[in-house]
Amino acid sequence: MADTPFSAADHAFMTRALRLAEGGLRTTDPNPRVGCVLVRSGEVVGEGWHLRAGEPHAEVRALEAAGESAHGATAYVTLEPCAHHGRTPPCAEALARAGVARVVAAMEDPNPQVAGQGLERLKVAGVETASGLMEGPARTLNPGFIRRMQTGRPHVRLKMAASLDGRTALASGESQWITGQAARTDVHGLRARSSAVVTGIGTVLADDPRLTARVEDAVAQPLRVVLDPHLALPPEAALLREPGRTLVVAAAGGDGQADDGAEAALVAAGAEVIRLPAHGGTIRLGPLLDHLGAEEQVNELLVETGATLAGAFLEAGLWDELVLYQAPHLLGDAARGLFRLPEPASMAERTTLRVVERRMFGDDQRLWIRREEG
Amino acid sequence: MADTPFSAADHAFMTRALRLAEGGLRTTDPNPRVGCVLVRSGEVVGEGWHLRAGEPHAEVRALEAAGESAHGATAYVTLEPCAHHGRTPPCAEALARAGVARVVAAMEDPNPQVAGQGLERLKVAGVETASGLMEGPARTLNPGFIRRMQTGRPHVRLKMAASLDGRTALASGESQWITGQAARTDVHGLRARSSAVVTGIGTVLADDPRLTARVEDAVAQPLRVVLDPHLALPPEAALLREPGRTLVVAAAGGDGQADDGAEAALVAAGAEVIRLPAHGGTIRLGPLLDHLGAEEQVNELLVETGATLAGAFLEAGLWDELVLYQAPHLLGDAARGLFRLPEPASMAERTTLRVVERRMFGDDQRLWIRREEG
Repeated sequence: MADTPFSAADHAFMTRALRLAEGGLRTTDPNPRVGCVLVRSGEVVGEGWHLRAGEPHAEVRALEAAGESAHGATAYVTLEPCAHHGRTPPCAEALARAGVARVVAAMEDPNPQVAGQGLERLKVAGVETASGLMEGPARTLNPGFIRRMQTGRPHVRLKMAASLDGRTALASGESQWITGQAARTDVHGLRARSSAVVTGIGTVLADDPRLTARVEDAVAQPLRVVLDPHLALPPEAALLREPGRTLVVAAAGGDGQADDGAEAALVAAGAEVIRLPAHGGTIRLGPLLDHLGAEEQVNELLVETGATLAGAFLEAGLWDELVLYQAPHLLGDAARGLFRLPEPASMAERTTLRVVERRMFGDDQRLWIRREEG
Repeated sequence: MADTPFSAADHAFMTRALRLAEGGLRTTDPNPRVGCVLVRSGEVVGEGWHLRAGEPHAEVRALEAAGESAHGATAYVTLEPCAHHGRTPPCAEALARAGVARVVAAMEDPNPQVAGQGLERLKVAGVETASGLMEGPARTLNPGFIRRMQTGRPHVRLKMAASLDGRTALASGESQWITGQAARTDVHGLRARSSAVVTGIGTVLADDPRLTARVEDAVAQPLRVVLDPHLALPPEAALLREPGRTLVVAAAGGDGQADDGAEAALVAAGAEVIRLPAHGGTIRLGPLLDHLGAEEQVNELLVETGATLAGAFLEAGLWDELVLYQAPHLLGDAARGLFRLPEPASMAERTTLRVVERRMFGDDQRLWIRREEG
């Protein structure tokens, strides 16, 4: 670490690197979003960001852009340069070899098994290093990658849309559309940045959603995950006809052994079917998250469900963020509620939420909520 | 009307008059809030506002402040000067007598029987007149007075407090407190500007509220109105021990003839008891509003109730504004809902609300909603 605090110039260049990193928001999966700025004598001589797994890392793209000018430069990177040989050679080595004089990282590698190794390798090579500059924004950039590296599970983001009286659908199940066009467009952005979208069979049967990210830039579609304990998903469901993969999660074991004929029909329709532990007729969420983290490398998981499943995520504490769109409508108390939750014993025991942003999308307000770290 | 549009200076002085009028926000009942600015040669020579019924009108206070300087001045008034002898002599006469050269009113008198008479009297006296300058803000200042003059009924403002999932209380009825201190303080301001506060017997039995305006300035307490078809209000209820009047509305006629013993006990405890038509065990809201407008001169009526009564006001279309405080909490779907409303036949038939302001009070958001004029 440097002995002096970071300068205003350091902050400005790291801000630029963070902005660059956002260029990979919808494409780097399962890698993190990373940006890099090379600065010599106060001038930017090269910059880059990681676009897609298998393609060059941000540091390599910045070095390519800088050429000889990288010699003696400071590199601002939003994540500690890697020290390991993955699909590409280690960036720490590339930076040292190019003669970079100083490397400032916003945060260390979140993988506890390699954290600090990239900076250490740079130090050994005689490069000055520092880390922790604008670590908060850098963490916000990669909540899923960080969570998965540290726990093996995805970052869980619940998306709900409701009227002002907290209703998501009519009693009949009709919910299209609670919100206006601007909010619905925003949801496609949420899907596009997610590795996977999970929903319950009830939502699929009621709405027949496609669950795709319909955005202007060409992105890989998020993995669609349907929690379907008894394999009730019709092979004609719209989401099976969309580009990208659909994973149907049936109940394993004694609690509702799923029908092999139904499975064969779904597989024929293009779905992948797996079986995970269930309890009380619903897929257990902990094993689900373990599976999605370990087997599917899911960083950000978007949960788009009804009150029962959303309530289950909340109740189990298996969530990180809630994105709630509120539309200026009333549906009345016969309509469906937001969250099926057990009654708090008293007002003092109610669930408190931390709203970190409120923003209008047309007539609807989006509340971005983070779980209070307990 | 003047032949030319109002000038920037006209707007500035009327803005000042509107600000002055707000000085009477909590005190003028049953009169309207009115402000007046007298301007000569571009300089304010006198200003005033109406403070309390029986005390001088805004114009008279401004004329007193201006003295001789009123001669040749322009008077900016937020409401057409009165032409009739009430508790005070007509302001139109006073303005003309003081030699005011021009009178600009934000709006005409909302009472259709006298509208235009004040301006007409001024014209006859040779004073130049104009009206309609900043009429929108002037109307916002006196929604209740205007509504009562035009329909005989009060302006109905529903106040609700709910969690983000639209719940107002636990299933047990516990609701104290959904919102934080800042929002609750704001509610006292809502009460202070209201002529009356109405609630249902269910809310009184659950919460034993005082329903007083606990604000720093000395104000007359709003009339407390309890809809109590079967006179179930206990004579020990907290609201009967507060300053100001409490009106208990029991059901008249065949639908639940109230108990005379209960009535005597309530009267002994300081309440006034009246009987109004009921239907299906609830007081009918139309006759209630007629009574409050005609007999109690209620301008702004604040409705602080649970889901059933609030839903009844909405369903009957007998409301003008909804002030909704949303707290960043979840109570879950076993908790009580905001509005008991009949299920819409389809999403297209849901109730659409017009949110005119969103404002934070501590961690809670206040949504100020106006009914869409049909």
